[in-house]
Amino acid sequence: MNKPIGNTELFEPSFEDIAQAHERIKPYIHRTPILTSSYLNELTGAELFFKCENFQKVGAFKVRGATNAVFGLDNALAKQGVATHSSGNHAMALSYAASMRGIPCTVVMPNNAPEIKKAAVQGYGGFIVECLPSSNSREQALEMVVKQTGAEFVPPYNDLRVITGQATCARELIEDVPELDTIVAPIGGGGLTSGTVLTCNHLAPGIDVISAEPEQADDAYRSFQSNTLVTDDAPVTVADGLKVSLKEITWHFVSNYVTDVQTASEAEIIAAMKLTWQRMKLVIEASCAVPLAVILKNPDVYRGKRVGVIITGGNVDLDTLPWLTS
Amino acid sequence: MNKPIGNTELFEPSFEDIAQAHERIKPYIHRTPILTSSYLNELTGAELFFKCENFQKVGAFKVRGATNAVFGLDNALAKQGVATHSSGNHAMALSYAASMRGIPCTVVMPNNAPEIKKAAVQGYGGFIVECLPSSNSREQALEMVVKQTGAEFVPPYNDLRVITGQATCARELIEDVPELDTIVAPIGGGGLTSGTVLTCNHLAPGIDVISAEPEQADDAYRSFQSNTLVTDDAPVTVADGLKVSLKEITWHFVSNYVTDVQTASEAEIIAAMKLTWQRMKLVIEASCAVPLAVILKNPDVYRGKRVGVIITGGNVDLDTLPWLTS
Repeated sequence: MNKPIGNTELFEPSFEDIAQAHERIKPYIHRTPILTSSYLNELTGAELFFKCENFQKVGAFKVRGATNAVFGLDNALAKQGVATHSSGNHAMALSYAASMRGIPCTVVMPNNAPEIKKAAVQGYGGFIVECLPSSNSREQALEMVVKQTGAEFVPPYNDLRVITGQATCARELIEDVPELDTIVAPIGGGGLTSGTVLTCNHLAPGIDVISAEPEQADDAYRSFQSNTLVTDDAPVTVADGLKVSLKEITWHFVSNYVTDVQTASEAEIIAAMKLTWQRMKLVIEASCAVPLAVILKNPDVYRGKRVGVIITGGNVDLDTLPWLTS
Repeated sequence: MNKPIGNTELFEPSFEDIAQAHERIKPYIHRTPILTSSYLNELTGAELFFKCENFQKVGAFKVRGATNAVFGLDNALAKQGVATHSSGNHAMALSYAASMRGIPCTVVMPNNAPEIKKAAVQGYGGFIVECLPSSNSREQALEMVVKQTGAEFVPPYNDLRVITGQATCARELIEDVPELDTIVAPIGGGGLTSGTVLTCNHLAPGIDVISAEPEQADDAYRSFQSNTLVTDDAPVTVADGLKVSLKEITWHFVSNYVTDVQTASEAEIIAAMKLTWQRMKLVIEASCAVPLAVILKNPDVYRGKRVGVIITGGNVDLDTLPWLTS
């Protein structure tokens, strides 16, 4: 029997669940490469292995969880489509996955979302339903969509199908890089972190998993320190993929299995982002610069270790780069 | 007997020369990955294979030729060091190669070269000798360095050791991607193009080699059209790696073996550069966006073909991106 999750009626996915998810999504995702940088290794004194999910379909790891959810639906349910609320990578990922299965995807977005994000979702075949920019309006709109269409709601992270999909990322990393000591991943809602600790628990329980978070959106840090789930109230950070807060399911994984949560300032995040562009020639989002920022900030923790770093995505507005605008 | 080169006393390198160069430089260079983009394939109707020399040591293919020249020197000559004039990737590449061999490298640079470029050369261990910003002063300074130190001059491109080193790039591409129809590479001084046609002549004579050039620095285009070597006079283009002109040795290879020279406007180059950053998540120089620009501009030439594209480098000033400043 797998372990129960908090006060829910859910249980932790098994390794078989992760392997099944991996088989299910393989035709629709890339096995992304792992890159290294001798410059950054020298700078940090660690051996860093960057898992490049910025090269992933839709430009982000989010496609793993979304695809697992979409292709895990039985035919009757799938026919009615899927729905979510998000203005970020999850919305694009779900639209992509739905179009791969040939089913509709509806995305609820605030009416002030940037045109570029709407266009991206539509580019992957998603329909957009606009709501007012409040969480009340968003929830009402989503409820209406689900009621009217029978679509299955696929949440961005607080969902075991999504978490199990994200778990495949760490599985590939562990398979491709032997004897890792540590994996560092950025943390927002905690879907990737949950999947990562899940995989490590099954495959390589000796690996430390460290979550990297912006100081200005540090709900995971404060939750971890106080051992109580706390949430952020409309945080402002350049790492805009990490503004969301942990929820019950992801908090279960973070509180039980994460080794540490480390934070970085806005300036540290932007510097790490620019350094990655300069030295690794990779376009990465600010969100996935947070791991390198905490590694540079805490050299004693990482020196001499083999460290996997998950580069979560590369969807950046090239017209407003943070080192030019801030 | 290999073919003679123009009016020089030189002969075309053999395949054995290329293979030897490859063995010589392998410990010091990366075998760079080849990436693809389903989005760009759909957009162009071709199958594009991007050889990512932006991930190369020093961030550019130039390290191949420089390393071949440096490690090909006999011990007595090597001891006296190497020298060059360049404010671009060749200067960094030669400094890197020299430091790998533990010999001095002197780089003549105009006194108005950007601090960032001087720092880059020094970061790889090169010494800088400043000259006035004229080609006279540059040549005098270089001559003085060579006379005083006995250093071996390694030119940026008009040199068979350098060309033979650059030839290893196309060799890897051809080995890794079977049945290419065409290879497109940017052309400045013609070192990479010369190496590419040399490799194709030996390994895969059926492959068309197309040179991609900025309209605003189109000496290769005009030379190719008129079948006479013409040069540019201080051209201005965003593709700053391509401002230099063909010389006698590289003109031999271009005039005899290149299938076509195609040009792109500044706006087309910048658009292709931004598209590559957006869609492939790769930081590439404007110079290496010229191939994609000409592919997008001449769809009928490339549609249905398997096309290798050499991404020559990723050394970009992230503070002055051309789509933000122009």
